[in-house]
Amino acid sequence: MFFHRQELQFSSTPDKPDAVFARKLQEVLGGQYGEITVAMQYGFQSWNAHIPGKYRDLLFGIGAEEFGHVEMLATMIAQLLEDAPLGVTGDAVQDDPAVAAIVGGTDVQHAIVAGAGARPVDSNGNPWSAAYVTASGNLLADFHANANAEMQGRVQVARLYHMTEDKGVRDMLGFLLARDTMHQNQWLRAIEQLKEDGLEQLPVPSNFPQKKEHTDVSYQYLNFSDGAAAADGPWAQGPTPDGNGTFSYHDGPTTSAPMPEPTRPDARLFGTTD
Amino acid sequence: MFFHRQELQFSSTPDKPDAVFARKLQEVLGGQYGEITVAMQYGFQSWNAHIPGKYRDLLFGIGAEEFGHVEMLATMIAQLLEDAPLGVTGDAVQDDPAVAAIVGGTDVQHAIVAGAGARPVDSNGNPWSAAYVTASGNLLADFHANANAEMQGRVQVARLYHMTEDKGVRDMLGFLLARDTMHQNQWLRAIEQLKEDGLEQLPVPSNFPQKKEHTDVSYQYLNFSDGAAAADGPWAQGPTPDGNGTFSYHDGPTTSAPMPEPTRPDARLFGTTD
Amino acid sequence: MFFHRQELQFSSTPDKPDAVFARKLQEVLGGQYGEITVAMQYGFQSWNAHIPGKYRDLLFGIGAEEFGHVEMLATMIAQLLEDAPLGVTGDAVQDDPAVAAIVGGTDVQHAIVAGAGARPVDSNGNPWSAAYVTASGNLLADFHANANAEMQGRVQVARLYHMTEDKGVRDMLGFLLARDTMHQNQWLRAIEQLKEDGLEQLPVPSNFPQKKEHTDVSYQYLNFSDGAAAADGPWAQGPTPDGNGTFSYHDGPTTSAPMPEPTRPDARLFGTTD
Amino acid sequence: MFFHRQELQFSSTPDKPDAVFARKLQEVLGGQYGEITVAMQYGFQSWNAHIPGKYRDLLFGIGAEEFGHVEMLATMIAQLLEDAPLGVTGDAVQDDPAVAAIVGGTDVQHAIVAGAGARPVDSNGNPWSAAYVTASGNLLADFHANANAEMQGRVQVARLYHMTEDKGVRDMLGFLLARDTMHQNQWLRAIEQLKEDGLEQLPVPSNFPQKKEHTDVSYQYLNFSDGAAAADGPWAQGPTPDGNGTFSYHDGPTTSAPMPEPTRPDARLFGTTD
Amino acid sequence: MFFHRQELQFSSTPDKPDAVFARKLQEVLGGQYGEITVAMQYGFQSWNAHIPGKYRDLLFGIGAEEFGHVEMLATMIAQLLEDAPLGVTGDAVQDDPAVAAIVGGTDVQHAIVAGAGARPVDSNGNPWSAAYVTASGNLLADFHANANAEMQGRVQVARLYHMTEDKGVRDMLGFLLARDTMHQNQWLRAIEQLKEDGLEQLPVPSNFPQKKEHTDVSYQYLNFSDGAAAADGPWAQGPTPDGNGTFSYHDGPTTSAPMPEPTRPDARLFGTTD
Amino acid sequence: MFFHRQELQFSSTPDKPDAVFARKLQEVLGGQYGEITVAMQYGFQSWNAHIPGKYRDLLFGIGAEEFGHVEMLATMIAQLLEDAPLGVTGDAVQDDPAVAAIVGGTDVQHAIVAGAGARPVDSNGNPWSAAYVTASGNLLADFHANANAEMQGRVQVARLYHMTEDKGVRDMLGFLLARDTMHQNQWLRAIEQLKEDGLEQLPVPSNFPQKKEHTDVSYQYLNFSDGAAAADGPWAQGPTPDGNGTFSYHDGPTTSAPMPEPTRPDARLFGTTD
Ligand SMILES: [Ca+2]
Ligand SMILES: [Ca+2]
Ligand SMILES: [Ca+2]
Ligand SMILES: [Ca+2]
Ligand SMILES: [Ca+2]
Ligand SMILES: [Ca+2]
Repeated sequence: MFFHRQELQFSSTPDKPDAVFARKLQEVLGGQYGEITVAMQYGFQSWNAHIPGKYRDLLFGIGAEEFGHVEMLATMIAQLLEDAPLGVTGDAVQDDPAVAAIVGGTDVQHAIVAGAGARPVDSNGNPWSAAYVTASGNLLADFHANANAEMQGRVQVARLYHMTEDKGVRDMLGFLLARDTMHQNQWLRAIEQLKEDGLEQLPVPSNFPQKKEHTDVSYQYLNFSDGAAAADGPWAQGPTPDGNGTFSYHDGPTTSAPMPEPTRPDARLFGTTD
Repeated sequence: MFFHRQELQFSSTPDKPDAVFARKLQEVLGGQYGEITVAMQYGFQSWNAHIPGKYRDLLFGIGAEEFGHVEMLATMIAQLLEDAPLGVTGDAVQDDPAVAAIVGGTDVQHAIVAGAGARPVDSNGNPWSAAYVTASGNLLADFHANANAEMQGRVQVARLYHMTEDKGVRDMLGFLLARDTMHQNQWLRAIEQLKEDGLEQLPVPSNFPQKKEHTDVSYQYLNFSDGAAAADGPWAQGPTPDGNGTFSYHDGPTTSAPMPEPTRPDARLFGTTD
Repeated sequence: MFFHRQELQFSSTPDKPDAVFARKLQEVLGGQYGEITVAMQYGFQSWNAHIPGKYRDLLFGIGAEEFGHVEMLATMIAQLLEDAPLGVTGDAVQDDPAVAAIVGGTDVQHAIVAGAGARPVDSNGNPWSAAYVTASGNLLADFHANANAEMQGRVQVARLYHMTEDKGVRDMLGFLLARDTMHQNQWLRAIEQLKEDGLEQLPVPSNFPQKKEHTDVSYQYLNFSDGAAAADGPWAQGPTPDGNGTFSYHDGPTTSAPMPEPTRPDARLFGTTD
Repeated sequence: MFFHRQELQFSSTPDKPDAVFARKLQEVLGGQYGEITVAMQYGFQSWNAHIPGKYRDLLFGIGAEEFGHVEMLATMIAQLLEDAPLGVTGDAVQDDPAVAAIVGGTDVQHAIVAGAGARPVDSNGNPWSAAYVTASGNLLADFHANANAEMQGRVQVARLYHMTEDKGVRDMLGFLLARDTMHQNQWLRAIEQLKEDGLEQLPVPSNFPQKKEHTDVSYQYLNFSDGAAAADGPWAQGPTPDGNGTFSYHDGPTTSAPMPEPTRPDARLFGTTD
Repeated sequence: MFFHRQELQFSSTPDKPDAVFARKLQEVLGGQYGEITVAMQYGFQSWNAHIPGKYRDLLFGIGAEEFGHVEMLATMIAQLLEDAPLGVTGDAVQDDPAVAAIVGGTDVQHAIVAGAGARPVDSNGNPWSAAYVTASGNLLADFHANANAEMQGRVQVARLYHMTEDKGVRDMLGFLLARDTMHQNQWLRAIEQLKEDGLEQLPVPSNFPQKKEHTDVSYQYLNFSDGAAAADGPWAQGPTPDGNGTFSYHDGPTTSAPMPEPTRPDARLFGTTD
Repeated sequence: MFFHRQELQFSSTPDKPDAVFARKLQEVLGGQYGEITVAMQYGFQSWNAHIPGKYRDLLFGIGAEEFGHVEMLATMIAQLLEDAPLGVTGDAVQDDPAVAAIVGGTDVQHAIVAGAGARPVDSNGNPWSAAYVTASGNLLADFHANANAEMQGRVQVARLYHMTEDKGVRDMLGFLLARDTMHQNQWLRAIEQLKEDGLEQLPVPSNFPQKKEHTDVSYQYLNFSDGAAAADGPWAQGPTPDGNGTFSYHDGPTTSAPMPEPTRPDARLFGTTD
């Protein structure tokens, strides 16, 4: 169960409205790596967990915080939209080219659809999609997804930080950056702990018997391009991170098979054939 | 430029058609973590790279291989669909309940839309979407996305491996599993190399001045749920992976702010207000 | 069957082109609550109706009008796009900052994809999706969906009305507003009539035996937030609109159940477990 | 802020696994009118509210409960998936035609992607989309959207109730039905209260000056189909629900305008013209 | 304006219900090349036309027919769903494996969401999307799109014809096939007429000055694969259909350019660079 | 298999950055008719081919070239984004209204999400979708789809050509225009060859026995609109392109059927009925 308290985790009030920035801020609310994504992702990972205790508790604990971040951003965006010129006619200010320029940079659905409210969309107005969510049931894979999500999210917030000089906005972004820092660190530590606890190892999934794969190509770097420097990395020689092999380097494939004959399905499917 | 050769990297021919499995196999062709995703993801990361040399060459080199995996899966799926009963009437076989059961498990668009051909969709028929792709320009973040993609992909292939007993299919899956093993290892090694080369550090992005974030909450685990075991992990105490702090544990938030007053936007937006 | 006449229901010609407003007007053509939505929604409701006579005739009668509104808006948008600067170079006017500002506010696909034509998309360029349509077969539920659609639509048209001073555009919007007024009133009246005819009652669906639900919580307002004023509304006390109960107010849940143990599915799904 | 407690609002445990029903139950978790939709919808309506007090408190109070319903359904679905045959080979049971039939009715991504976990999708595997959410800032319109959502949702749960005989599942559905009953009643009562408080009236939005619309057609039923019974309803005669007019009935349109001339945009857009 | 008549263009009644075929038939109602697509496509092409007279009249005339085909299919699907076992429990028939098999092949949203009604989706339940629509303003391009749509559509109907033995269904499909035959012929003839009227020529768009393109490669077949037979076609030698050149054949590219240096954007975008 | 070479087919370097044009150029990279579409379309058509030899070789040969066009455009876009003002504050230049105007015309995700990199989206930021792809297995239908794709694509490139005066950009567009010219000609020639080889004829699919369709309406132009000029085209009289009939013209339908009775499905689906 979730319980709501009418407080925010941190101040989310801009110094003044800015409808153009409101649009940009939508990215970290409703974009591929916005707060809705991490809230739902950690939620589904916890509900689908197959092991009680600290890992599930960790997911529950961070997931609920993220729903609060969704609320902080939505609240901030509504305030950023409060008094900005929204393309409504009859205002002298609309004749100002600078204002017209601003209007060009806003999300027009903020005005037409939401009446100056936040929306569950990204900065280009694409509705948030659950296709962004990852929850496979394999925690080593999923914690890498989580670390990545917090990294992409922190990169985006850092970019947004430099796109405004509003102290109130920057204050909130500074808070979200700190929480992204924490969550990056947590997922990376949890990755190590899964291995230390003997629950998962590399390669993921580690309980699939590796002998069933074609191990002859398991550690070959097959360079399908012609960039010579590709061979200079530690991914082309030396021991592999999973501890099971040694990298080798090859120009192009080491195996090949003839292209199969074209298929000839049922004639009543009316494909072109001879 | 890409050059095509009418050979496959590995044999991709089933022992016999199986339209139900053809549908399932679509997941790793056109799903969130299918081969189209990694091919396009590594492609865009290479085209957007901001540094010449080994990292870009690595992306180019693996990316082109993945386009070949797309082809292997599409070719395999077309063959799996070749002679299976596709719900076409007038065949005695259609009266068999077992056959009817099988038909229920197929992707009906395989027959109706593609005429027994592979499609750029997942195992539920959702068209592949470029919203699956990650390419931020920050390689430390993106390589974590890549490691995650190879892990999710290998988990899915491993699951599919046990959903068929067709030796030809398993042979190809065993090859793809091996390549996923390799690519997992490569991205994980590349992550370490980025740090060793001094190009990126944790937290991502490391060149954003951390003092601008609210560092007081940068290493606090704020448990917004009531699972006591959450405090027992190494993510609640001890040094953080980024080397910049020490984890601490807290029940709930350590900060709060009052909920801002509701906004009162322009009356011509016809929102409900007092 | 549908028959087309090359006339419009009302004049749909702007006084002068305005490519920025053309983009905004797309919302009520191809948005979540645009004319395509209501046309298709009333269509599917009529085709799926389970009762002959006045309700189905009502749906048919309004549905066909809405297809004409789609045409009015498409025609208007094409004219709004006719002579506006579309970002084509070589025009002196392009050097004017005011013009540049305008260009920033247009839908660039209007020019690139449609060659100055209307498109079946919303004001942010999202293609219209049939996921907007509601047609459940339960007319009491669906007529509420229809009333809502006409309300959201009229709110949007009213907002757009103030975003232009073009008399031709406002004339058409004034017509669409009047039709939305009518349709709101019609669906609300039809809701009452369904109840008077004894076809449906509250709660929807009324022919599901209410005793099968957990009636102890059927009229309890469980406040999962801490806003004290929530108890001050008539939704927290007094008789319920369905006539079957009395509202009561509660801080938080009145029931609870322990969280189930994590699941342990087949090991060949490679989830993380102990 | 949202706080999570590791309890459920009501028991959500099936008597036994049923992977086919798990798929069906996804509809009310991640479908157009599933619990994710209402949770997010009430959330955005509260964050975008323009008036403090009881209406916003009502939204906050119900919204948080809905997030708990999301959790109940996800938890239930994971358990329904626990031991069911998932198409994995090597099990004798797979040879049973009845089992094959069952497998045909499952969501194959439950196994391949989520490893027997719940997913944020509908019963056909379409990812949940924020395009389902309505939050206009006009509470009279939005509360109609909410009433509709609870009606559609209750209709779907009632249908699902008869698609299973599992007592544990039916018990939970009986609880959700009761809560839908409550929420239908609450939104309908809140609609009345908005009018009583003088905040909103019909037609929505009521503070748009009705004289600006073409009032001559504001109360005309224009029947664009040929169903004669359409005239027999109270939507074709008598006073209108908004109290501002009287319905009249007309076969077809009462107004018309000539189709405008085709547009002739810039030749550099390469449209076909004379 | 569109006017509706409560008649169908052709009988659309099945001999008996068949919920599995109802699902399949959704493809030609709400799929990429279903009737909704052509109805909307011809509609937008007519509304965006830049030339009065026969071409626009042709578009209007066929477009309105297609809306009637949408209705025919929706009506047929509702009837196919009427009495079929829909997975509702408590029916003896549900215990029959054959019935279970059938249920596995249905669209479960037909029952849960639409209550045995048609839906604006394809045979895998993907909502119809306006992204399927083509309307560029260039009639030579668009008529090719139309010819293709009628061809793809007729191929799909022909496939469906063999997936049922229901005489009523086949009767309707036989009618739709005939109309597709007509419309294919019409668009192909209209393509010729556009050229005869001197309105458009190849290559499309013909009024773009061809000398501005790199004419040295305008008629070279550059084979980026290694299939030798590619040179054996009339696309590799002889005069070109546009009458402006002669085909020539080349193994691989005849031009090349060095890969540009990686970009170095603003450091505040936090990309990885040296 | 695909092999990558770190060269481009043609110079893809702008004279100077232009973030607004970068956004527009996304259309032909990731739009409905962008290079990703044709690359994937020809790929799937080749993998699904049912006949060896020249047609499949043709598809392979052009398909691989298109992947190189994807790369050219991505590379060009990244360079167009290199130094443009991206809305980052603290730059004096940002105060310039002209700059603000420019910023309004950019894709803000270029900066926030991709860090000045290309993205697999169209010019409005819609992610590329595999729903754009056509691959039916019937080559006569599919080659019409291909011809249409190359025509739509060339129209869009021609429009973009006039939206920039950058010589480097125009140079690349001039190259792409030439290749579109070639590919239009190739698909049109291949259409003729299929017929000459006796593999396919009109109407598509030609191997469906035409006598099974309702041939009485196979060549009737039924004008469902009232545009009199529709009868003046060669599609209303004279021989049909398929050589099997003669066009005739009719005002409205020549057939009709009564609307079937409403359906009465299972009462447990809770539809409204009498
Ligand atoms: Ca966060
Ligand atoms: Ca791969
Ligand atoms: Ca309307
Ligand atoms: Ca609920
Ligand atoms: Ca048709
Ligand atoms: Ca191309």
